[in-house]
Amino acid sequence: MADKLELYHAGLSSCSKKSRLCLKEKGLPYRSHFVALNKFEHHDPAYLKLNPNGLVPTLVHNGTVIIESGVINEYLDEVFPEKPLRPSDPVARAGMRVFCKMADEYGLPATRIPTWTRTKQAQLKEMSAAEFDKVVAETPLVDHRLKLQALKGEGFTKKEFDEAYGKMDYIFARCETALLNGPWLAGEMYTLADIAILPYIFAFSEVRPELMQGHTRTADWYARIMARPAVKATYEPSAETAAA
Amino acid sequence: MADKLELYHAGLSSCSKKSRLCLKEKGLPYRSHFVALNKFEHHDPAYLKLNPNGLVPTLVHNGTVIIESGVINEYLDEVFPEKPLRPSDPVARAGMRVFCKMADEYGLPATRIPTWTRTKQAQLKEMSAAEFDKVVAETPLVDHRLKLQALKGEGFTKKEFDEAYGKMDYIFARCETALLNGPWLAGEMYTLADIAILPYIFAFSEVRPELMQGHTRTADWYARIMARPAVKATYEPSAETAAA
Repeated sequence: MADKLELYHAGLSSCSKKSRLCLKEKGLPYRSHFVALNKFEHHDPAYLKLNPNGLVPTLVHNGTVIIESGVINEYLDEVFPEKPLRPSDPVARAGMRVFCKMADEYGLPATRIPTWTRTKQAQLKEMSAAEFDKVVAETPLVDHRLKLQALKGEGFTKKEFDEAYGKMDYIFARCETALLNGPWLAGEMYTLADIAILPYIFAFSEVRPELMQGHTRTADWYARIMARPAVKATYEPSAETAAA
Repeated sequence: MADKLELYHAGLSSCSKKSRLCLKEKGLPYRSHFVALNKFEHHDPAYLKLNPNGLVPTLVHNGTVIIESGVINEYLDEVFPEKPLRPSDPVARAGMRVFCKMADEYGLPATRIPTWTRTKQAQLKEMSAAEFDKVVAETPLVDHRLKLQALKGEGFTKKEFDEAYGKMDYIFARCETALLNGPWLAGEMYTLADIAILPYIFAFSEVRPELMQGHTRTADWYARIMARPAVKATYEPSAETAAA
C-alpha cells in the first residue's frame, strides 16, 4: 500500500512552512488541507479532534495523527529515511536539536508579538463582545486566550515587545556564531535546524530589516537557503497558500 | 578508552533532575559538578564558556559539550543505546516528543512563576541596586533578565500567575488522557517523556496539591514512577544535591 500523507496547515504561517518545507525537501507528495486561521477553522470541532491544541500543522499518515511541526519533521525523517535531514553524528544532531528548540521557544513567541498585532488585532477589535467571548472560549490553549485578550484590549505591553526583540537579537547572534562552523546551522549538512529557523529569520527581517545588515553570515545563509527550489515552492504564494 | 561523562547541574532544580534521572536510569556513571544557582555560579565566565545561555544542566562527554536537558537526554539515548528510553516505533516516539516539548514549553515556565517567587524574590529584594544591576547584566537570556526585574519590583503579575496555573491544569489534563493508553505517558514503555514531565508534576503538586486528587491516573503514575530506584536516587537529597 502506498503511504498516504495529509497535511493540515495554514499556508504561509511559520509552523506550517516548517512542515511543508520538510515534506517538499524530502520529495514526499501529500494532500494539502488549508486551515483558514482568520476564519478560526483551527477551532472547528472536527479539527480539534485531530489537534486538541487547535494549532497548525497536523500530519495524518495512513490515518495516524502526528502533531507539532518539530515532532512532525523528526517523524518524517525517521519514517522516510531517504534524503535525510538530520545528521547521523549524534553531536551534530544534538546541535541541530538545540536550534529546533530555539525556533519553538524563542522564534515562535518572538514572531507572534508583532505578527499577531499586525494580522489579528484589527479583526479582534471589530468583533462584538459576544463574538470575541466565543472565540476566546473556543481557544484551547491558555497562553493563546491571554494573548487574544491582550490584543482586544491595550495590545501587547512594552515588556512583551522588549522580550520579543531581545529574542530576535539572540537568534540572529546564535545563527551568526553557528555559521562559523559550516554553511548550515548544524554544520556541513542542511538539516531540520535550517528548516526550523528559517520562518523566524524571514519574519524578523520583515519587522527589523537592519538585523540582516549586522549579521553577514546569516544574510549569506538566508540568500543560500531562499534559492533552494523546495524553499521557493514553500515560501512563495501558490495554490496551496492562495486562501491565506 | 572508557567514556568520560561529566554533568554540571543544580541538584534538585527541574532540568537538572531531568538529565540526572536519565543518566541514572541508563546506569551511566558520571562526574557530578554542582552549580549553585543562589550564588549565580551559572553566570561565571568559566561556566558560560560551556553553556553560553547560563542554564543548567550541561553535559560534557569526552570533552564535547551538549546543552539543554531534553537534547542531552536524546543524545544519551542515541550514544548509549542499552536500556533504551525511547520507543523504537516512530509513532510512539512522536508521542514521547510531544510530552518532552510540553515539559519545556509549558512545564518549565509554569513552574518558574511560583518557584522563582519563593526561592529568588527575597534574595533579589535584599540586594543593593548595584548588586542587582550586576546580576541582571550578567544574565545571558532576555526572558530571564525580565523575570529578575519583575521579581525585584512588583513580582509577577496576576496574568503571569493565571497563565502558569492554566498550564498546570493543561499538563495534568494531557497526562490524564495519555494514561488511558498505557502505564506511561508514551504508552507501554517508560520513556524520556515520563522523565521530562516528572519534575513539573512534582513541582505543581507542591503548589497545588488538589490537582493530584482530581487526576487519579496521573496520581497512580506518580506513585509508580516515584517508587523507581533511579527516581528515588535523583529526587531525594544526596551528596550530589547537598549544596542545594
